[in-house]
Amino acid sequence: MIQGPAVDGLVNLRELEARAEAILDPVAFAYYSSGAGDEDTLRDNEAAFGRRRLRPRVLVDVDAVDTSTTILGVPVGLPVAVAPTAQHGLAVPEGEAASHRGATAAGTLFCLSTLASRPLEEVAAAAEGPRWFQLYTHADRGITEDLVARAVASGFTAIVVTADMPVIGRRDRERRGGYTWPDGMYGNFGKYADERGAHPQFLRSAMTWTDLADLAGRVGLPVIVKGVLTGEDAELAVDHGAAAVWVSNHGGRQLDRVPASIDVLAEVVAAVDGRAEVYLDGGVRRGTDVLTALALGARAVFVGRPVLYGLALGGADGVTAVLQVLREEIEIGMALLGTPTLAELGPAHLR
Amino acid sequence: MIQGPAVDGLVNLRELEARAEAILDPVAFAYYSSGAGDEDTLRDNEAAFGRRRLRPRVLVDVDAVDTSTTILGVPVGLPVAVAPTAQHGLAVPEGEAASHRGATAAGTLFCLSTLASRPLEEVAAAAEGPRWFQLYTHADRGITEDLVARAVASGFTAIVVTADMPVIGRRDRERRGGYTWPDGMYGNFGKYADERGAHPQFLRSAMTWTDLADLAGRVGLPVIVKGVLTGEDAELAVDHGAAAVWVSNHGGRQLDRVPASIDVLAEVVAAVDGRAEVYLDGGVRRGTDVLTALALGARAVFVGRPVLYGLALGGADGVTAVLQVLREEIEIGMALLGTPTLAELGPAHLR
Amino acid sequence: MIQGPAVDGLVNLRELEARAEAILDPVAFAYYSSGAGDEDTLRDNEAAFGRRRLRPRVLVDVDAVDTSTTILGVPVGLPVAVAPTAQHGLAVPEGEAASHRGATAAGTLFCLSTLASRPLEEVAAAAEGPRWFQLYTHADRGITEDLVARAVASGFTAIVVTADMPVIGRRDRERRGGYTWPDGMYGNFGKYADERGAHPQFLRSAMTWTDLADLAGRVGLPVIVKGVLTGEDAELAVDHGAAAVWVSNHGGRQLDRVPASIDVLAEVVAAVDGRAEVYLDGGVRRGTDVLTALALGARAVFVGRPVLYGLALGGADGVTAVLQVLREEIEIGMALLGTPTLAELGPAHLR
Amino acid sequence: MIQGPAVDGLVNLRELEARAEAILDPVAFAYYSSGAGDEDTLRDNEAAFGRRRLRPRVLVDVDAVDTSTTILGVPVGLPVAVAPTAQHGLAVPEGEAASHRGATAAGTLFCLSTLASRPLEEVAAAAEGPRWFQLYTHADRGITEDLVARAVASGFTAIVVTADMPVIGRRDRERRGGYTWPDGMYGNFGKYADERGAHPQFLRSAMTWTDLADLAGRVGLPVIVKGVLTGEDAELAVDHGAAAVWVSNHGGRQLDRVPASIDVLAEVVAAVDGRAEVYLDGGVRRGTDVLTALALGARAVFVGRPVLYGLALGGADGVTAVLQVLREEIEIGMALLGTPTLAELGPAHLR
Repeated sequence: MIQGPAVDGLVNLRELEARAEAILDPVAFAYYSSGAGDEDTLRDNEAAFGRRRLRPRVLVDVDAVDTSTTILGVPVGLPVAVAPTAQHGLAVPEGEAASHRGATAAGTLFCLSTLASRPLEEVAAAAEGPRWFQLYTHADRGITEDLVARAVASGFTAIVVTADMPVIGRRDRERRGGYTWPDGMYGNFGKYADERGAHPQFLRSAMTWTDLADLAGRVGLPVIVKGVLTGEDAELAVDHGAAAVWVSNHGGRQLDRVPASIDVLAEVVAAVDGRAEVYLDGGVRRGTDVLTALALGARAVFVGRPVLYGLALGGADGVTAVLQVLREEIEIGMALLGTPTLAELGPAHLR
Repeated sequence: MIQGPAVDGLVNLRELEARAEAILDPVAFAYYSSGAGDEDTLRDNEAAFGRRRLRPRVLVDVDAVDTSTTILGVPVGLPVAVAPTAQHGLAVPEGEAASHRGATAAGTLFCLSTLASRPLEEVAAAAEGPRWFQLYTHADRGITEDLVARAVASGFTAIVVTADMPVIGRRDRERRGGYTWPDGMYGNFGKYADERGAHPQFLRSAMTWTDLADLAGRVGLPVIVKGVLTGEDAELAVDHGAAAVWVSNHGGRQLDRVPASIDVLAEVVAAVDGRAEVYLDGGVRRGTDVLTALALGARAVFVGRPVLYGLALGGADGVTAVLQVLREEIEIGMALLGTPTLAELGPAHLR
Repeated sequence: MIQGPAVDGLVNLRELEARAEAILDPVAFAYYSSGAGDEDTLRDNEAAFGRRRLRPRVLVDVDAVDTSTTILGVPVGLPVAVAPTAQHGLAVPEGEAASHRGATAAGTLFCLSTLASRPLEEVAAAAEGPRWFQLYTHADRGITEDLVARAVASGFTAIVVTADMPVIGRRDRERRGGYTWPDGMYGNFGKYADERGAHPQFLRSAMTWTDLADLAGRVGLPVIVKGVLTGEDAELAVDHGAAAVWVSNHGGRQLDRVPASIDVLAEVVAAVDGRAEVYLDGGVRRGTDVLTALALGARAVFVGRPVLYGLALGGADGVTAVLQVLREEIEIGMALLGTPTLAELGPAHLR
Repeated sequence: MIQGPAVDGLVNLRELEARAEAILDPVAFAYYSSGAGDEDTLRDNEAAFGRRRLRPRVLVDVDAVDTSTTILGVPVGLPVAVAPTAQHGLAVPEGEAASHRGATAAGTLFCLSTLASRPLEEVAAAAEGPRWFQLYTHADRGITEDLVARAVASGFTAIVVTADMPVIGRRDRERRGGYTWPDGMYGNFGKYADERGAHPQFLRSAMTWTDLADLAGRVGLPVIVKGVLTGEDAELAVDHGAAAVWVSNHGGRQLDRVPASIDVLAEVVAAVDGRAEVYLDGGVRRGTDVLTALALGARAVFVGRPVLYGLALGGADGVTAVLQVLREEIEIGMALLGTPTLAELGPAHLR
């Protein structure tokens, strides 16, 4: 069990939500935890992992289990990184700066949201670990251009284009909670709010495949398409210059009744056919979830809510603790699956 | 969230039943809400939508989402119209007149039941929006003829023949409630009650396919067969002159253990094979339900109980509010599915 | 709703168990209601009907619905008869005499158990309706011979051989209740108890197929094999002279984890291939259950526990009331399926 | 029902866990009862049996039902033996000595864990019944060699190599309970603790297939591989000299999300293809579970937790009582399946 001032006695990631609910403002908790509609997809993200069964191999030499890998060439200590989520400032005042430090300490990559509570420069300066920038475009194109330029300047090494938010999903629980954008948490938009009266609420992901190809050709960094749930779109992403395809249903927050992420992973991996890396987020709470996704062809997985809850509970140390639990579960899982390296995982490890 | 005196803060249609139960007379609530037998079909109508999964497409231009369509040539602002249900007078004194006004305000079609609390002329006069007349035949054939003639004269533009009520289903919960036809709510039968002592309780749908063909050839309006659950009957309907086939299990109120409406839609669509429009009612509570039905080939869907509950809660405004929530969910759903028009929806949007 | 002193306001058969539990001695209730082991099969008997879906046909002339049929040539008013169950004397002092009167009044056949509380002569004399005798063999072969002779003499017109009780199943709930054979309720064994000290507890169904063929050739009445759950045994039954095959898992009281009766009916019907009638008991609580079994090829179904509960609640009138509810549900079900006669039911009425 | 001072009134094995929880120290109970991770596999072990359905045959002569068989040539009175589990001393001071006596009294085989609370010599001396020794290897190879030599010397007739514990699984419930190895319960390691300061916590099953072949060629006793869940590993086991393959997921205590044991049995039986005996543990609580496993090709099954609970409740007598309940359920089950000998069970007895 993780011990320390942050998340004392954390045994597994399933405990986080109830603990975080106990200390977070109810509106903030509703904002973090809710999903769209009936939350069928939100629940299915976790449940779909629970329906799968692993095939472990025995009497293999697993004395030296190695959880490290690379994500688009970035070395990481475990095949789990931090998904972009908005408004870490609702958890702790330091916001994403603390999260980035926590990810770095855990030996993995941090992906910053356009909708961060803190400016990207501040987050970048907070830690030395690898970082990516998640991009929502703004109605004002100049803002989008500037955001990308700032990300490049601050050492973010890939642009993650969120493709599944042309409009904001209806999150009934959040609506009941009455969430509104907090005053003074303009993050990356403080500058534009002052300069042009721009507000992060006017962000959307209203790009098309043509816009994507244009961005990919121009930005000088790898571009990743996040929010893909079909083989057709996975192919389009690769064809339009994406360096990686990120399977996601936005944590069940956009369109309810879309499939659990893990249930479409195989379709996406088949469509990509090795031409790009494939990632996944949605419902990852256990080392076995991670190993299941990798066995189906994902290069790595990302976690969102558990990081927010860890942050709320223990700041940067809480984030590290959450990732550390996953690392330990992955390590034990690899030994028990008989796969001392991640590269050995494959479809034969799944029923 | 919908705001206003009617249905303050309505977030979604699932909330309606409990709210309506709190204000309706228990006998009226049992009459509105109950289903036949064990209510397996009643529950399955909603649950079957929840078992389906949508395939959303991304990076499509959805700046202009258009929820409008036509139903048998009638332009409507959304692919959802009001199903015929009996006895709106149990909800508010104005009964169906208010419901018709609510549907018109929401930009859609209203289908009046033969078993309305108010006479069809009064309902027709209450609003300008499009309206159809649902027909139960009476043991006294002259009454049936007169009903149709009155509907034509009052501007109803199609006759919906309910095919699934040759006898009334056993609704155990309603029976426990002790429902009896309310005094003075004779609606379309006030006239016949005075003239001939006829009572709406003697209505049935005791037609045969021959009777249907006869009616279709004679009435001068399109005839729609409502209550079809098999491909065989869908073919017979088209062959006997139906302009549209309406998949319905009567809201689970007739024969328990028949399939959820959505579970037989594909079979009916295949049998009709483009020769008529296909509609569906039963369990529609979410924009995603509507989009699922359209992706499977329905031209439009109809909602029954949510309209009754909205009417009870807020009169005509309540009806409008209910339809408005669906419209918003449909609009967001279309954007998130990557289908700016309804015509683009198809089987590829379903797993 | 059924009205009267017996089972006032009975709406459906699902209500019976709780009502009966409230008035029966707990040990008697445990004896009647319990199943073997974990009661998986007991529950599955009802649940399996609930998983099936009917395909109703519309616009058929169902003005004259006829629920009557014959069972091995015996005319009955509905395709439901009374299954043999032990110890009706635990419900009312009159025991099986009252049950037989109730069945006769409902227009159907009564099947008496060897383990009845009252002697078969007394039961036969109580009513004029058709009756069959269910046979358990006794270790003392002379007793078996005498039982059959007495049944023939008292106008029982078929012998139902229970094949699934070579030993008594382990009914954990009954064992906890501490059931023992009640003093003075020797029924058919009073005579043998006096003559030879024989006790009904020493009954078994320890026959073989050879014994069955021997009995069938000798008894002069049709012999029915009850307790068949495989196509193989159904074929053997026909080959060894059975006039009918009765699909049953003994109400889930013998071996837990065998299939629900309805789940093996199609297999048995296929194996019998028209050479004998096929019956079913187990989990029948609804008119739709009856129609499902007939659509799959059963000639009739039998009900056990609901009759016992009706008997406990209202004596002979209670039994009649229970059967009457089923008859009404069957009648409405036939109208709504579009099958005015039972002969029209077939596999096309099932999904 | 079992009667006696030990486990008064025990009706079935499902009762044991709650009874044992009431008397055991909470930490000990958590150690015995917990599974890895979310305990999906722990629950699935039992649930998977409940999803299967048996096909009983009737009118077979089952006057003489014989539950006896052999396990690797060892005659046993029932096809159920005692699985190796650690630390029986947490249940009663006598520990495994009592369990061995209970198994002997029940007429079956006892398999002793390396991690026993009592030294193997003491356990061997406690009863005359057949016994096997389960082996974990120690980092200090000399200890492993010595353990095997002691087992041979004490009349253990087979070595069961546990293959699925190269590292210890994460049992979240046990971790919350704060279990640590009890002082003074060194069992087989008392000797090594004194001699070399070795501690049982440093045990692992860190063998490879080569090590297994080496052991099998050297030990002079049959070697069994326990913890196989794939056909591939079953083949490897046979190819490397295993006399039997033991399907097990370590009672759901090692890697969560692996399949229920019964769900992979058919795959393993097919891979072994008659070249070795196949056993199973995991979730066996009912006679029908045992018969299901045998019908799928297992030679025998082993029970773990029920024995521990029986031991806690009634010492050696409790263990005997638990096995006796299973024997009675098996006996009745065989009669009701129409299989008077175990050899007759086969795939035709399963749907």
